[in-house]
Amino acid sequence: MNLKRIRTIGLVAVTAIALAACGNLKSSSFGSSSSSTTTTTGSKTTTTTGSTDSEFYQGVIKNGRYRTSKSRGVNVSQNDNVMNLKSFETQLLDVSQKVFSTSKYVFQEGQYLSTSTVENWLGRYSKSNKTGLNPQSNGKTGSTTRNPIYLQQLEEQDYMIQSGSKLSLGGVTVGLGLNSVDYYTKVTYGATYETDISTTTLTAEGKKMANTVLQRMRQKSALKNVPIVLALYKQSSNDSLVGGNMIAYAVSKNGSTSFSSSDWKSLNWQSYVFPATSESKNSGANSNDESDFSSFKSHVQNFFPNLSGVTANAHYQNKSLKKLSVNITTKFYSETEIISFTQYLATAAKRYLPSGVPVEITVKGADGTIQSFLARTAKGSSYYTHVFSDQGDD
Amino acid sequence: MNLKRIRTIGLVAVTAIALAACGNLKSSSFGSSSSSTTTTTGSKTTTTTGSTDSEFYQGVIKNGRYRTSKSRGVNVSQNDNVMNLKSFETQLLDVSQKVFSTSKYVFQEGQYLSTSTVENWLGRYSKSNKTGLNPQSNGKTGSTTRNPIYLQQLEEQDYMIQSGSKLSLGGVTVGLGLNSVDYYTKVTYGATYETDISTTTLTAEGKKMANTVLQRMRQKSALKNVPIVLALYKQSSNDSLVGGNMIAYAVSKNGSTSFSSSDWKSLNWQSYVFPATSESKNSGANSNDESDFSSFKSHVQNFFPNLSGVTANAHYQNKSLKKLSVNITTKFYSETEIISFTQYLATAAKRYLPSGVPVEITVKGADGTIQSFLARTAKGSSYYTHVFSDQGDD
Repeated sequence: MNLKRIRTIGLVAVTAIALAACGNLKSSSFGSSSSSTTTTTGSKTTTTTGSTDSEFYQGVIKNGRYRTSKSRGVNVSQNDNVMNLKSFETQLLDVSQKVFSTSKYVFQEGQYLSTSTVENWLGRYSKSNKTGLNPQSNGKTGSTTRNPIYLQQLEEQDYMIQSGSKLSLGGVTVGLGLNSVDYYTKVTYGATYETDISTTTLTAEGKKMANTVLQRMRQKSALKNVPIVLALYKQSSNDSLVGGNMIAYAVSKNGSTSFSSSDWKSLNWQSYVFPATSESKNSGANSNDESDFSSFKSHVQNFFPNLSGVTANAHYQNKSLKKLSVNITTKFYSETEIISFTQYLATAAKRYLPSGVPVEITVKGADGTIQSFLARTAKGSSYYTHVFSDQGDD
Repeated sequence: MNLKRIRTIGLVAVTAIALAACGNLKSSSFGSSSSSTTTTTGSKTTTTTGSTDSEFYQGVIKNGRYRTSKSRGVNVSQNDNVMNLKSFETQLLDVSQKVFSTSKYVFQEGQYLSTSTVENWLGRYSKSNKTGLNPQSNGKTGSTTRNPIYLQQLEEQDYMIQSGSKLSLGGVTVGLGLNSVDYYTKVTYGATYETDISTTTLTAEGKKMANTVLQRMRQKSALKNVPIVLALYKQSSNDSLVGGNMIAYAVSKNGSTSFSSSDWKSLNWQSYVFPATSESKNSGANSNDESDFSSFKSHVQNFFPNLSGVTANAHYQNKSLKKLSVNITTKFYSETEIISFTQYLATAAKRYLPSGVPVEITVKGADGTIQSFLARTAKGSSYYTHVFSDQGDD
């Protein structure tokens, strides 16, 4: 990785900054205003995306373009289950908010780890890949005898500080996505085998890797003294209907190059699918939440003569519900059916679904096209509803 | 059609009614509350869906189920272009609102015209189908010499009046969807040919059919005296990216069985696609709206290094913009890109898109999955934004 080149880009980025009013992303956004202004210095212009919610960071725009990650796209190819990609990134933002306040920091996609760096780090250690964070192959292919791939994805997020017209690096967060199941083949295009990895093992391996990552990042002069957060994420299996969860994080301050065991804070975050199935026992979910959802489901399911599919993803932190995402699929025969169904959902959701947490409900046709959408914020009492009128078939 | 059976159902429907508080559907909904209560009389229960917007009607629920149309599904099979189905139905609601106020009337899917009735009416007149509204075949297959199919779809909507615990029929609207292009084959599974139909011709044919439909409906005792609205809709061609538009409507009061030419009111409603193409000149669209959209598009399109597709459907009434639906498609490499892009859109839309009209913006990934959504009401100044966090691939 060419450090000089990166530093130059970094300097260019801060030549002109626009401060944008804070406003909300996420569902609690409505009613808030957003704005962002642009300052031009010569031909170089850096602005921010504007924010629609104080819950979320503004992003960095340079010369009209979003400042994309230097390792853009690596994690897309690393995830067979898109849920792992989405929840890894959003939860990495959630962890970052514990350290970098949204009111003080601006979000920037990772600029210090390039695609080739990340790809090498995600590989196995070998003679030709001395930076590989995954263990060297031991030549074995048995599911319990081989050395599995622990580290599946890695993401850097930069947090910038606005000061007058300057934007300077205020801290970095790096997430390590660790396999609970490692999928492998014994021959190219051969059958897929699985190595299960216990949470204890993947946590221990993740903490070891975190030290190595921290040490390597501290070698870059721009990262010598800024706070660096390392977060460990447990990937869900490929057949899981929910993504994985962050399990621990640690903050390195004052340029320290390793974490002590007391630096690590555990995170008790869980994701469940409602209704529970025999495979997903949802042991950590609140049974009241589940029965609330069941009431909602049974009322909604019979609204049309043809049955509707109703499921939900529930996210818990410290055993209390933090977010509920409901997915409803049914066959519609007219636009008026979609409108009436959406109205009914707003009434039913208000009556049956748990209050005090953000809820989002998406309604799709049998072909998967979104038909309508409802959402309520944690504090809100009523649902925002929207019927998509101009959605053709995709 | 069995009139006795229909009357019995109608009587059952009004045995128990719940009045629901008025609240908003559509994008202007947020902040409003919705509720609906249920009254049970014996085993028969009729409720309403609840409304989230005074702009929209509540719907009728019976015994926990939506009261679906007696001709449910006919129009789905009649439309090769789904845009025609959606805009036909929503615009039929818009026309109905001119006659039946949303504060006084409750919406009910059509209960007086059955599937077989509608299917027969949509057919050609023949010895075996004496009720066919389309002209008898003249045996010719030339695109200008044959008798085309004028009537492509037909929809009945009922408007109910709540009075105490009773729900009684207050009026009926029937929409006739008329082809601007009739697609036909000369032999089964053969090539598709087209007969173009001028607006003058389809309007004249539609008005003739409207008289026949009115006369037939007045023969049903339940429909003898209620107001009946007939609305004419011009279908767009199958390759059109926008649906058609309502072109005229007439109201029959006091049990009249035909419309005089002065009963007909013309509607100058138009739909356009932005940006204009060589085929769609958008001659009736406001050039300021188009240039506003162009500014928005050029800013948005360059946000990512990879280009985004940005188009819009614009709906006009009497040459003034009534609604703008923007569709954006791009390839995303991370969840943070989606969040930042959505924030940027809220800022860019507020700055560049026309104000004073409802705007909805949907953001989709390259695979067609919805990623985020923004909307602003006609009166609103800021955009409601929502990033879909738990959308797997469909």
